[in-house]
Amino acid sequence: MDVVKVINSINEQTKNGISEVYLVACGGSLVDMYPSKYFLESEAQKIVTGMYTANEFVHALPKRLNKDSLVIVCSHGGNTPESVEASRAAKEHGAHTIGLTHNKEAALLQYSDQTFLYEWGEDSDVKNNPMAIILSLCVEVLKVVEGYEHYEAFQNGMGKVNGIISEGKKQVGPRTKAFADKYGSEELFYILSSGASYGHAYGFAICSLMEMQWLNAASIHSGEYFHGPFEVTDKETPFILMMNEGRTRALDERALKFLNQYAGKVEVVDAKELGIGTIAEEVVEFFNPILFYSILCEYREALATVRNHPLETRRYMGKVAY
Amino acid sequence: MDVVKVINSINEQTKNGISEVYLVACGGSLVDMYPSKYFLESEAQKIVTGMYTANEFVHALPKRLNKDSLVIVCSHGGNTPESVEASRAAKEHGAHTIGLTHNKEAALLQYSDQTFLYEWGEDSDVKNNPMAIILSLCVEVLKVVEGYEHYEAFQNGMGKVNGIISEGKKQVGPRTKAFADKYGSEELFYILSSGASYGHAYGFAICSLMEMQWLNAASIHSGEYFHGPFEVTDKETPFILMMNEGRTRALDERALKFLNQYAGKVEVVDAKELGIGTIAEEVVEFFNPILFYSILCEYREALATVRNHPLETRRYMGKVAY
Repeated sequence: MDVVKVINSINEQTKNGISEVYLVACGGSLVDMYPSKYFLESEAQKIVTGMYTANEFVHALPKRLNKDSLVIVCSHGGNTPESVEASRAAKEHGAHTIGLTHNKEAALLQYSDQTFLYEWGEDSDVKNNPMAIILSLCVEVLKVVEGYEHYEAFQNGMGKVNGIISEGKKQVGPRTKAFADKYGSEELFYILSSGASYGHAYGFAICSLMEMQWLNAASIHSGEYFHGPFEVTDKETPFILMMNEGRTRALDERALKFLNQYAGKVEVVDAKELGIGTIAEEVVEFFNPILFYSILCEYREALATVRNHPLETRRYMGKVAY
Repeated sequence: MDVVKVINSINEQTKNGISEVYLVACGGSLVDMYPSKYFLESEAQKIVTGMYTANEFVHALPKRLNKDSLVIVCSHGGNTPESVEASRAAKEHGAHTIGLTHNKEAALLQYSDQTFLYEWGEDSDVKNNPMAIILSLCVEVLKVVEGYEHYEAFQNGMGKVNGIISEGKKQVGPRTKAFADKYGSEELFYILSSGASYGHAYGFAICSLMEMQWLNAASIHSGEYFHGPFEVTDKETPFILMMNEGRTRALDERALKFLNQYAGKVEVVDAKELGIGTIAEEVVEFFNPILFYSILCEYREALATVRNHPLETRRYMGKVAY
């Protein structure tokens, strides 16, 4: 599907343009939506956005939802019951729905006005993965409804990010191995970031570490760290800090300074060092999480190898009733 | 200050009514704002809301911010630099500001158009604490700008909640002691809740456990639990589940059912059992976090006693430069 055509087509069916963009999913797919939430909350002057875990959206549907709302729902397998139900509820209230999934026979598709069957796996260009597609959809909504002065810069950045990631992966290769060797016996990690990347701090905690490694983990916003969480900092507790390029970098730098002084186990993944700065400064912040997702996949792979705990191993998900 | 007068006065100064309510603070004060964010996102059809940790608001100011925006900033001590700066930035962009603090000489006051010097401590009625004041402000904004059909029910609930809490505290007294005796040696807790109370799950994790007890902790949304986090569930890991009354109770009940089967250390704090159901069903969900805050304070007090770690002890906050 074509992002431009899809958004134009939906927008033409609304009275005064798309008025709301709701981002609805569960777990890892919800994580993929955070950069879009951050983007619209930061850049939009008219369009309203909301991000919901699907079951909360279903049980506490926002009263604002209407026939000019766009509801984007993403489910990798496409059959997550809460996400399918969220899409159904959105349709029932007259909203426009876009469904993203990797499964062409997904139940989600029956309630999606438009569908993106996205690519997945090592060889796919990240611009065809859900995080980037959803972000591109939201950028397009902003452009069509109220204009977006950095649209060209954004498209230019989207054309560059896969290449930046390829280089970045090579750069961190030895580091991920060293990280896994050093921290392979840890039982808990705190993941810090800010801005568009906070969602991926959450995602790395709940998906990569809790779900795929059965490790304890929590995300901390770099800005919030100093207002409670930093009291657990000591030489024994491991922290992973994803440092953004862009407006919120100052928050990450402040956390780094403190960690360097009081923590003993700190892994820094710095988007600037990994070359993201070749993207224009007006839009670079929105690309940090796309880079971090791919780079942190290298880290989790190395950790899984050292821990002899394959990333696919589950004890509950898809195995027991819940 | 009077909530009704303050909101009417601000609204009269806008062109078409207050268009946005931004909730901006750090740590525990930000936690106090979550129920208001949930309320407006759920109930409003025109008013837009956004919730920000203060330093991110300052560094990545939303472009929507304008002279018809209301920015509510809360800081207990009133001198948190990021919060003071957020209020200053809001004023600079022409927005209306309300400052809440417990300090009548707070720096925050110099950038607040209106100020609430709130009550604090064991003897204060919770309706005069920041969580309830901020929620009342947002309810008033909704009523004044676009109408709120459950306004009377809400005011009625606000009149009841302090009494419910008093009874609830008596009811949980023996339980908090048993909880502390049983879990006093644990080093990590997961805190689950949903709806308006998710913010307090986060708050109990970062303030009560991490900051005040130097314990590892993380909040998990009851709806998200099944999409990653539940893989860490085992008989040894402690979970605290705050069960809401209202629309999202089904999410908490689902988590409880799973925890009862696969976890071994589960503490349930159930708002329904604690008597919150005497508040009208149209509004009861918004009062859950007000109850949970006070009840969970009893739990943390009991834990601090057994652990011989006073709640006031800090190693970094207010002690070192950061």
